[in-house]
Amino acid sequence: MTDRLRATYRVKATAASIEARAKGIAVEQSVEMPLSAIDDPAVLDGIVGVVEEITERGEDCFEVRLALSTATIGGDAGQLFNMLFGNTSLQDDTVLLDIDLPDDLLASFGGPNIGAAGLRARVGASADRALTCSALKPQGLPPDRLADLARRMALGGLDFIKDDHGMADQAYAPFASRVGAVAAAVDEVNRQTGGQTRYLPSLSGHLDQLRSQVRTGLDHGIDTFLIAPMIVGPSTFHAVVREFPGAAFFAHPTLAGPSRIAPPAHFGKLFRLLGADAVIFPNSGGRFGYSRDTCQAVAEAALGPWGGLHASLPVPAGGMSLARVPEMIATYGPDVIVLIGGNLLEARDRLTEETAAFVASVAGAASRGCGLAP
Amino acid sequence: MTDRLRATYRVKATAASIEARAKGIAVEQSVEMPLSAIDDPAVLDGIVGVVEEITERGEDCFEVRLALSTATIGGDAGQLFNMLFGNTSLQDDTVLLDIDLPDDLLASFGGPNIGAAGLRARVGASADRALTCSALKPQGLPPDRLADLARRMALGGLDFIKDDHGMADQAYAPFASRVGAVAAAVDEVNRQTGGQTRYLPSLSGHLDQLRSQVRTGLDHGIDTFLIAPMIVGPSTFHAVVREFPGAAFFAHPTLAGPSRIAPPAHFGKLFRLLGADAVIFPNSGGRFGYSRDTCQAVAEAALGPWGGLHASLPVPAGGMSLARVPEMIATYGPDVIVLIGGNLLEARDRLTEETAAFVASVAGAASRGCGLAP
Repeated sequence: MTDRLRATYRVKATAASIEARAKGIAVEQSVEMPLSAIDDPAVLDGIVGVVEEITERGEDCFEVRLALSTATIGGDAGQLFNMLFGNTSLQDDTVLLDIDLPDDLLASFGGPNIGAAGLRARVGASADRALTCSALKPQGLPPDRLADLARRMALGGLDFIKDDHGMADQAYAPFASRVGAVAAAVDEVNRQTGGQTRYLPSLSGHLDQLRSQVRTGLDHGIDTFLIAPMIVGPSTFHAVVREFPGAAFFAHPTLAGPSRIAPPAHFGKLFRLLGADAVIFPNSGGRFGYSRDTCQAVAEAALGPWGGLHASLPVPAGGMSLARVPEMIATYGPDVIVLIGGNLLEARDRLTEETAAFVASVAGAASRGCGLAP
Repeated sequence: MTDRLRATYRVKATAASIEARAKGIAVEQSVEMPLSAIDDPAVLDGIVGVVEEITERGEDCFEVRLALSTATIGGDAGQLFNMLFGNTSLQDDTVLLDIDLPDDLLASFGGPNIGAAGLRARVGASADRALTCSALKPQGLPPDRLADLARRMALGGLDFIKDDHGMADQAYAPFASRVGAVAAAVDEVNRQTGGQTRYLPSLSGHLDQLRSQVRTGLDHGIDTFLIAPMIVGPSTFHAVVREFPGAAFFAHPTLAGPSRIAPPAHFGKLFRLLGADAVIFPNSGGRFGYSRDTCQAVAEAALGPWGGLHASLPVPAGGMSLARVPEMIATYGPDVIVLIGGNLLEARDRLTEETAAFVASVAGAASRGCGLAP
């Protein structure tokens, strides 16, 4: 058999129908036509998807592992999504559960530029503590108001301050003005305090716009960015990562829902593969419905050994609060970025103090050594 | 209230919780933070999403209409998806059902370059007949084999021959060689027969790659292309459409997911808004689970009046066969492109004859006047 990647799907089907259904997915995700109409042996042997294993997981619930030709990917990240789950995403009985790629394919996509260890080094954090992040909100504020929020957050000692993922290039806070104002505010605090707080602007648009935004950021000394792979498209995300090897990227999960790819495969593997140094995802017990098991599986996929790829840092988020810090660090260990967004902003006039309390809480949890991560 | 677009969601919630849940979506899709932490009146009045109407649709089932600020879109197509359904796509109780945009926003995105009437004119089809399309498959064949298939299909008199959506820039059929070979084969048939068959290459990758592919196509006299908006990303799709105003685009639904954005809104509205001259979607009774009502609603959304935008032609597909032509034309009327892919290829040596029978069947159904479309 030619070079193959493995894709595992969870499929709702009866025991009587699963074999045919599995073959149907193998055809859908490769040649997408009746095999009876194919006479070319190179296509039949080398391109058509192969059902390697079917495992029953419960009543009318199966896992199907396919071997798909790596030649169909053609080196393109969008095409990887297309061949893994394009048409099958339109069928409501199937979820893409996991992927396993040969080492040369892993290496050719390349993964994060600097990864978990690189991010940690960038903010000067020792290996035994978790990292901290908050978000500039609400969108609609002008650049000077956002810069003031960032200044007060940086004074509290955060590692990362990201734009809200809803910030793009809107008239009320155009990208260049916003980034200039916020970067200057954070730089000033870093000079005052000796801190290494990073500000992450939110990138948006097509490749030309993204390039221009990254360059604007670099001009202001910014080296870490927020980007939404399912909005900009996988190929574009991957192209930006490879084009700016000195930059780091936090991947935001927005719009990832409709594709029905299991979160550990989606965020922990696919986003990492294409170059996410950190992956934001909805933590359990917040505004989203992910279970604790799902969240831990995302973190394990993001951090675990995978070919020669750098690890991605998990960033559980979405309605987190200061009260949850000890539990989050107990769950994820030190290899995590704890993100508290809107909840921190409720402190209003006491934003710096509340931020400092958040930072101290994360540092304290680490020094009590309650981490569980590898 | 500042300029607003309307987004309607179907939400699973109890009568006791729906009001809070609706406000939650309005916040999630606008400022994404507690309103109690916002003190800026311009943000509270102008940016925060507003719940305009809640309608009960059944037990624990509601429709919620929000008014969202158009200022948050910043003119970017990806950001439009982000603000309509980005984070909410991660919550499993909510479907984006419909959108309604002010005329100036419609005009600024611009819709299809040539639309339904332009496509019809391009292939010389009178207004009373449906159009025909098939697909070059399987991927894995080299360019000369694909060109031979295209030649035999064109001899059958098809209007459109598209690449399989799995074709990208793979080693076994690189984009430039494939397009050169297939375009030459189809041109030769057109010269012989006086036909106007269009070959649509499948585009893939990021903006630079897409531009280069479109230019390669234009160099070969190609003016119509296949593209997958959810793979390349909405901003990139939109940029390509606007950059090549003489080109037409068929949008493929791959990776669009099963049901989290309702297909009429997704394909009939959003894809049309960004520039799809034709929208491919899974027809009922094929390999995918869409109902007949859903499919008709997609066609109505694609074809109906919408600001000054050109109409998009619906292309129901996914496991269609010659036997279904009369029923499909009875369902959709003449304003449809009937796409039979793999099923036609099962004719093998009789591909030209089977294609001609398909074309005659579509023409015959039209002459019997069984169309239902407006």
